[in-house]
Amino acid sequence: MAVHRKLNNIDNSGFGPNSNVEGGRLTNKDGSTNLTKTGLPFWERISLYHTLLRMSQAKFWLIIVLFYTSINVFFATVYYLVGVDKLMGIPTDGSEAMHFLNAFFFSSQTLTTVGYGHVAPNGIATSAIASIESFVGILAFALVTGMLYGRFTRPRAYLIFSDNALVAPYRGGRALMLRMATYKNNHLTDAEVLITAALHINENGKDVTRFYPLGLEYSKVNSLALSWTVVHPLDEQSPMYGYSEQDLLDSRLELIVAVKAFDDHFSNTVQQRTSYHISEVIYGARFLPMFRRAEDGSNTILELDKINLHEKAKLPEPDVTPVDANSMS
Amino acid sequence: MAVHRKLNNIDNSGFGPNSNVEGGRLTNKDGSTNLTKTGLPFWERISLYHTLLRMSQAKFWLIIVLFYTSINVFFATVYYLVGVDKLMGIPTDGSEAMHFLNAFFFSSQTLTTVGYGHVAPNGIATSAIASIESFVGILAFALVTGMLYGRFTRPRAYLIFSDNALVAPYRGGRALMLRMATYKNNHLTDAEVLITAALHINENGKDVTRFYPLGLEYSKVNSLALSWTVVHPLDEQSPMYGYSEQDLLDSRLELIVAVKAFDDHFSNTVQQRTSYHISEVIYGARFLPMFRRAEDGSNTILELDKINLHEKAKLPEPDVTPVDANSMS
Amino acid sequence: MAVHRKLNNIDNSGFGPNSNVEGGRLTNKDGSTNLTKTGLPFWERISLYHTLLRMSQAKFWLIIVLFYTSINVFFATVYYLVGVDKLMGIPTDGSEAMHFLNAFFFSSQTLTTVGYGHVAPNGIATSAIASIESFVGILAFALVTGMLYGRFTRPRAYLIFSDNALVAPYRGGRALMLRMATYKNNHLTDAEVLITAALHINENGKDVTRFYPLGLEYSKVNSLALSWTVVHPLDEQSPMYGYSEQDLLDSRLELIVAVKAFDDHFSNTVQQRTSYHISEVIYGARFLPMFRRAEDGSNTILELDKINLHEKAKLPEPDVTPVDANSMS
Amino acid sequence: MAVHRKLNNIDNSGFGPNSNVEGGRLTNKDGSTNLTKTGLPFWERISLYHTLLRMSQAKFWLIIVLFYTSINVFFATVYYLVGVDKLMGIPTDGSEAMHFLNAFFFSSQTLTTVGYGHVAPNGIATSAIASIESFVGILAFALVTGMLYGRFTRPRAYLIFSDNALVAPYRGGRALMLRMATYKNNHLTDAEVLITAALHINENGKDVTRFYPLGLEYSKVNSLALSWTVVHPLDEQSPMYGYSEQDLLDSRLELIVAVKAFDDHFSNTVQQRTSYHISEVIYGARFLPMFRRAEDGSNTILELDKINLHEKAKLPEPDVTPVDANSMS
Repeated sequence: MAVHRKLNNIDNSGFGPNSNVEGGRLTNKDGSTNLTKTGLPFWERISLYHTLLRMSQAKFWLIIVLFYTSINVFFATVYYLVGVDKLMGIPTDGSEAMHFLNAFFFSSQTLTTVGYGHVAPNGIATSAIASIESFVGILAFALVTGMLYGRFTRPRAYLIFSDNALVAPYRGGRALMLRMATYKNNHLTDAEVLITAALHINENGKDVTRFYPLGLEYSKVNSLALSWTVVHPLDEQSPMYGYSEQDLLDSRLELIVAVKAFDDHFSNTVQQRTSYHISEVIYGARFLPMFRRAEDGSNTILELDKINLHEKAKLPEPDVTPVDANSMS
Repeated sequence: MAVHRKLNNIDNSGFGPNSNVEGGRLTNKDGSTNLTKTGLPFWERISLYHTLLRMSQAKFWLIIVLFYTSINVFFATVYYLVGVDKLMGIPTDGSEAMHFLNAFFFSSQTLTTVGYGHVAPNGIATSAIASIESFVGILAFALVTGMLYGRFTRPRAYLIFSDNALVAPYRGGRALMLRMATYKNNHLTDAEVLITAALHINENGKDVTRFYPLGLEYSKVNSLALSWTVVHPLDEQSPMYGYSEQDLLDSRLELIVAVKAFDDHFSNTVQQRTSYHISEVIYGARFLPMFRRAEDGSNTILELDKINLHEKAKLPEPDVTPVDANSMS
Repeated sequence: MAVHRKLNNIDNSGFGPNSNVEGGRLTNKDGSTNLTKTGLPFWERISLYHTLLRMSQAKFWLIIVLFYTSINVFFATVYYLVGVDKLMGIPTDGSEAMHFLNAFFFSSQTLTTVGYGHVAPNGIATSAIASIESFVGILAFALVTGMLYGRFTRPRAYLIFSDNALVAPYRGGRALMLRMATYKNNHLTDAEVLITAALHINENGKDVTRFYPLGLEYSKVNSLALSWTVVHPLDEQSPMYGYSEQDLLDSRLELIVAVKAFDDHFSNTVQQRTSYHISEVIYGARFLPMFRRAEDGSNTILELDKINLHEKAKLPEPDVTPVDANSMS
Repeated sequence: MAVHRKLNNIDNSGFGPNSNVEGGRLTNKDGSTNLTKTGLPFWERISLYHTLLRMSQAKFWLIIVLFYTSINVFFATVYYLVGVDKLMGIPTDGSEAMHFLNAFFFSSQTLTTVGYGHVAPNGIATSAIASIESFVGILAFALVTGMLYGRFTRPRAYLIFSDNALVAPYRGGRALMLRMATYKNNHLTDAEVLITAALHINENGKDVTRFYPLGLEYSKVNSLALSWTVVHPLDEQSPMYGYSEQDLLDSRLELIVAVKAFDDHFSNTVQQRTSYHISEVIYGARFLPMFRRAEDGSNTILELDKINLHEKAKLPEPDVTPVDANSMS
């Protein structure tokens, strides 16, 4: 059975002891919370701007194009319904489809404010609609300008993490290790990492989730230039001390990793999170260096494709006196 | 009579001991200060930009439309007064109303820089006015672009608070509790809460307002993913220790709540405030969970409509030796 | 002679002990440093953007209008020199002045991209220039958009300070006091004040400037809603303890005041500085309240025009044993 | 041989003990890391936006102009291939080169949305292409607007450092000194400096790089108004204590300097880094003042061209008992 040591148990993880979610993990690999919110209308629960900010490039540009086309189709329909004879310069002898297309082109010339004028509104209704459309156009492109600016200035840490956490030999004992590196031409300073272990345990016959902050060899670095291997020694200070691999599997260990740093590019604080499920922890392995000296000796080369590079390593037997779960207060 | 214990009395609330405002609360429910400023002209006291940033969507768009219309009406009037015969392409045989409308449409084509050209300025005066208007147009839309960008990038905490604070049973005693949750797809980290209790008391025959920071079970959480129930134990450390419900009513207790956190969306510090008047405190109740496991066990569901969900709960009798108000220094 | 106590002497004021500037103050009333930089070309010493950001509204708009006019005059000259016959639609029988004016109007239609087209470029040279001008126009207005946005989003504390610092009676002794308040509809939290006293003294026959951080009754407030009277007790902890009014005049005391706070409007840290020269310190006065309850008792009224309101007050005699300047190490 | 004292050895420099790069320095003079990243495609390793933000003015404007020209050439080619007879208003009897040029001018009128209309699209294909181009134009200029805004609002410290670090006499001993000053009309507050010494040493027969934070006389100043001379006393607290000049040369000492401050202009935290290689350290010299009183005594003058001004100074003999490298654990 799984032993459990009541040590540093915290309840400030933002989840709480009753959040013993069977099956699902608490934090997804990409750092987002595995959480659904209900009870409020969709539009109140969602932040449209931030959704647009965080979606992929392809999806974003598709939405922009659809947005432009939709507005044009809408106004083209209005011009068409009012009558293309009110659009000076459009040949009135074309087919209906041609009329609609011409209305569409006039609409796009109005929306983008290019306004060649070889087609121009005639009559109060069409002039008024065109006046509205050019106004809509300017507001729409104000929104798009802001959105584009927001997208490329959104502070991000640009960190990659090793796919797996390792249990490696460390100073005669064992330690849990994971590795990270910045992959862009950015530079992080005052980087700080916080690892919280979530353990689903049986306490006095009741299933609860306990959260423990993990002590780290270094939890801060002044400058994150090369890779950073974060080390949690599995000694008597560790909440996982005395746990066998099977115990951790049973308690569905999840390591929630949060990195916070100051980024030179954005002159802003950036954050990134990830998590490691027990199934992503490898026993008996150590990371191999991912940087080397350049051949001409002039600088250092950080090999980002080696972030996961590790070799098997024999673990020393843990020297543990299991603590009986019943002796806990 | 109301007993009073001089404990942790602070004067750094920003209000000061003489601010014993009869009747009104110090902080409004929406977190704004219940304060009027005088002695400076209106335009110096107001920050126009921030007023526009914080108003409702409907009001904001109404102002934008009115702004656009006003500028157009102004310039249309100028063109009309100079003479529509100076606008090439406008039929000069229409009614006066028609002339004004045509001037209006020309104005909007100039302001938005769509400039079809089927109507074009003729003569120095009209050309100069049109030159000014197109310049005004570009500046105006620069302002609107900034405003729109400012509105959707304004850092906000997107927190909902429970309508009421509860006095609930807690570890054999009593505690004051309130609950909050984020309602958007945002994620707060390093969230910190500060609750200040304002008590209007009689000290040596003089009415004064005293402010006390309240000790909390947890005043910080690493990550505010689910709901957060903030707990102030009503033990001997509490400035309200020994106060009966009637005492608190007499001293018109007000809890000023300030939350500060780092928001992932904005990569910025966000703040939100609220307050609970004694009339919004329920005696003998406890919050019921507002999150549950999804049916398929894959994630957690946060039910935002249950933020206020509570049940009645019997309170243990407080074990208090009332402190005599006269024994205070 | 001026006595001097070596107490908390700091050299991290950014000025240094040799900065004994005869006559001029170190920090101006508006908080800027009374400093001139030389040794680098003007354009490298100046930040054009920030100069434009900080200038007055009137000056800024004047520059914008001059900027627009200059570009138009420049391009009008170019079109005029190439020949107005290359601008289709311009009457070629006008005067030279008329030709130039028409070139100017065409230029403004191109720069703002309104492009009616009743006048249009003809020939390679004019078409190429117009192509460049419309490009310049868009870039120029991109700059103006950014500038306008930068101006109205520039974080500022919007604080007013009392014109004078007072030496007032305080807890049986004396204290130096000054007062501040926010004058806009903004709200500062976590406000922090730092007062550094600069004393120009004679140390071992050499004139030096010494800087001392002043101890304050409260140097932080959670929330700066009403006015804040900052109090430095003139007790034995004070570097000015034992100084008579004449001593302070002789040592040309200057109080450098820096306020730092978090502003809700900007969701940013804001700063404001000011300074008080000894000639701006009033002996024997106390501030009168500048806020009162509204007549209907519903809220508090902060009267900004009363920021300087004070009354005369008799000061208790200081109980001081002057420290001999020669006994200093 | 080089002596070595195990003192304050830190491994949170972001480099790590194995980063003994022969030859190259760790940090370049401009503060960037002397590092190459490999293993990811170029486009994933680079942040295009930040590259554009940090390049020189000349290079940036060249790219903008090339960008504008390229888009025009592209669309001009498309219009030309579809047929210039589909562009109403273009003389069809010109040469092919003339046709292309006219297509180019039409393209630029569409891209900038100036749209005079003396040339206008005719037919579905050309109208559709023009509709796309004007849309592309608006998006492109939205990008350029954001880029320009990003460039002139990028927080920077605007610091100059002395070219050399000096080993100067200091309180009867020696100290390492370097000097910095702000060269723009900006003002830094809460400035903090962190100097890390990198020493490449032989430990138990193995070449390793050790990092030591250097103790400073002042590591923080409230306000960086004038110049700031940063002083590291070479006393027994120093990791370089007992090192001769030759020892430091052998261990290829590198001083990595990082300054962090709050900037009034940007209301943001700014950072700047630099480094001093042992070859940039001058033994036996002291800085001369770089500021003086104005002739009229009204303010202080900071002479930026004197940042490197120093004179020779005789160093006292260090009183050192060399520590044997073998006695280290």
